[in-house]
Amino acid sequence: MSIAANNPALTSWIEVQPNSDFPIQNLPFGIFKTAQLTPRVGSRVGDFVIDLKSLFVLGYLENLPFEMGDFDTSSLNNLMKKGKKGTRDLRNRLSKLMESGHDDLQKNEHHVDQVLIAADQVEMLLPVEIGDYTDFYSSREHATNVGTMFRDPNNALLPNWLWIPVGYHGRASSVIVSGVDVHRPMGQTRPNPNENPVFGPSQRVDFELEMAFVTYDGKPLGDRISTGEAEDYIFGMCLFNDWSARDIQTWEYVPLGPFLAKNFASSVSPWIVTLDALEPYRVDGPAQDPKVLSYLEYEGQKSYDIQLEVAIEPEGVEEATICRSNFKYMYWTMVQQLAHHTVNGCNVRCGDLMGSGTISGPTPDSYGSMLELAWKGEKPLKMKDGSERKFIKDNDTVIMRGFATNGEVRIGFGEVRSKLLPAK
Amino acid sequence: MSIAANNPALTSWIEVQPNSDFPIQNLPFGIFKTAQLTPRVGSRVGDFVIDLKSLFVLGYLENLPFEMGDFDTSSLNNLMKKGKKGTRDLRNRLSKLMESGHDDLQKNEHHVDQVLIAADQVEMLLPVEIGDYTDFYSSREHATNVGTMFRDPNNALLPNWLWIPVGYHGRASSVIVSGVDVHRPMGQTRPNPNENPVFGPSQRVDFELEMAFVTYDGKPLGDRISTGEAEDYIFGMCLFNDWSARDIQTWEYVPLGPFLAKNFASSVSPWIVTLDALEPYRVDGPAQDPKVLSYLEYEGQKSYDIQLEVAIEPEGVEEATICRSNFKYMYWTMVQQLAHHTVNGCNVRCGDLMGSGTISGPTPDSYGSMLELAWKGEKPLKMKDGSERKFIKDNDTVIMRGFATNGEVRIGFGEVRSKLLPAK
Repeated sequence: MSIAANNPALTSWIEVQPNSDFPIQNLPFGIFKTAQLTPRVGSRVGDFVIDLKSLFVLGYLENLPFEMGDFDTSSLNNLMKKGKKGTRDLRNRLSKLMESGHDDLQKNEHHVDQVLIAADQVEMLLPVEIGDYTDFYSSREHATNVGTMFRDPNNALLPNWLWIPVGYHGRASSVIVSGVDVHRPMGQTRPNPNENPVFGPSQRVDFELEMAFVTYDGKPLGDRISTGEAEDYIFGMCLFNDWSARDIQTWEYVPLGPFLAKNFASSVSPWIVTLDALEPYRVDGPAQDPKVLSYLEYEGQKSYDIQLEVAIEPEGVEEATICRSNFKYMYWTMVQQLAHHTVNGCNVRCGDLMGSGTISGPTPDSYGSMLELAWKGEKPLKMKDGSERKFIKDNDTVIMRGFATNGEVRIGFGEVRSKLLPAK
Repeated sequence: MSIAANNPALTSWIEVQPNSDFPIQNLPFGIFKTAQLTPRVGSRVGDFVIDLKSLFVLGYLENLPFEMGDFDTSSLNNLMKKGKKGTRDLRNRLSKLMESGHDDLQKNEHHVDQVLIAADQVEMLLPVEIGDYTDFYSSREHATNVGTMFRDPNNALLPNWLWIPVGYHGRASSVIVSGVDVHRPMGQTRPNPNENPVFGPSQRVDFELEMAFVTYDGKPLGDRISTGEAEDYIFGMCLFNDWSARDIQTWEYVPLGPFLAKNFASSVSPWIVTLDALEPYRVDGPAQDPKVLSYLEYEGQKSYDIQLEVAIEPEGVEEATICRSNFKYMYWTMVQQLAHHTVNGCNVRCGDLMGSGTISGPTPDSYGSMLELAWKGEKPLKMKDGSERKFIKDNDTVIMRGFATNGEVRIGFGEVRSKLLPAK
């Protein structure tokens, strides 16, 4: 697939630092506001946010299938309603406007002042009005680690795991954007299996390093989306911290799955990086053995090489990187997840969010949760001030970052950063 | 609590049959359209639907906190945004307008023609734009039956069940209204544990007899709703058929809970009966032993005496009633469910839907699912044509009905009726 905006030779007339997450080849979409400007759609190049409402008002987005309400709005949903062709054409237009040598916008200094806003002057908001949020459990290493710790090391994977991209429904209302603090949840736990359960603040608050994808409108209820069709229904991806209270989870999750252990908050990064922008970073998914059932078969490279890292920043202390993983480790691909999700006729709507599940890699430093990194507390992690962590402490900030690079161009996701406040 | 509209002595100038679900004391809310009328808010008395948009246009809803867009809309969400006082005042106004002896509306024949529409002339639509849908598992009898069948009859209840109103998140996108047909889901199952799983139509499609409640806007993320406050956040209730594919469920549900076994469809009745209308039918919930943790304690009568029944109507055959149950059998009350759901700070929004879980009673004819009624297929149910049912067959229609009565007044929910079509 050739997408004009992905041309690695492009440079922008906006200065972009070599290590920036936002070269002209990225052009992600998000929602921002400032002290003066109401919430609206933005994109980003280097250290500048592009105000798409202003671009539209000034006439730079003519002959595209959009109207004012698609940009002058507090979610990307209207934009996504236009489908893959609409958003692709929009991104190509933005690329053209920002490209070195094309001065349609650049030559008009007054317009440039109106359209470009320093990134440190904006507040990024939740990018999508989420309809349904689904979380998968698609990292073999993560499922194996959890099975080894809590079940049988010799049969760590449950019988269905290699056959099904296991998933469950999560809570859409409590998905929040990077920068919004999270309170340590209160809840019911049973620290001692021989005593009654107790109520109090969770003692085992954890993160889960995930990525998530956002969907366009799918098919009507009753129809299914094949693996071959699935990418046409995926708008883009973001970083995702699936906050988890392990002690609440242990007590509540049998037999219907995690509930209050998860739904107190889930944090997303503010920029949705389009699948189009990630096109050059496709890689093969892992070999799948046993052979999957036919509705889960797929052709081509459906995984992406996206480097991920997690850092913890205790209050007043420099952050320590505690995990380096990669999205390509996922056993089940997004096209398989979407095909499975809809194979029973379940309908997907514009703005649905699908989490990957914790992304653990093969080495202990690539595990995607404190539970695994500190191995149930047996191997505490060192912070820069010498303090140790088995789980997340009050006032710790958890930071996740991710980017894809092929040596030529680096497409980044920015970060999802959230501080754990004490229980209320 | 004295609510004017609940006065048992009231009669309407609209004729109401003695066995009607919709006396003037009910006045539920729903969304309807006709061949001529766009989707809008309605209420109901006897065999007539009341067009609230027309009532508003004609000036009958003055001095209430509503505007045109609250009635000229395809969901009840705008209405519910006004909170309990707003919707209570509206219901009291409707009561006044429909009451015998008050002829403000009745005397104006032209207005009556515009406002009242024969119920068989309207199409009822999904009443609520559902944000998040949560399903509980709150019937002790149901949990015991399932535990007896699939785990250990001597320890049928899992250790957490008497301590937690166990719940999980479901799929909002596939909640449909009564009258919308459902396709038998395709899916992955493993009929023989010693062989590989297979893909095909579910062989064990079941209903679950439930009721559901709909919420007003709750508190912000991080705050909790106590049992004492919970009723202020509940708008009303409806009947709920939580369609379930048992064979898919068995294979997929460990460890993260039901997913594709449930999310192909869930059916609601079209009229939301307000908690206000159910006020006279309060009863004590069951004694809870062991004593619940303090955040789950409550005072007063928080359950409701609502008689429920399920019938199956095979194609071209008279329906057979196969279950008679009662909402009062629920072990966990709605106020406990809502307090538990928010105790970790999880936020509830206007339009969230919370299912009760299967409502099974103490006797075998009161079990709320085919799984229990036919006891894993060991006791098939007889239809009127002599055919047997272990689960639901193609082209069977499942019908659920419910009403509360105290001898004086009968408050009904109408029905939720859905036909199972063959797999696509």
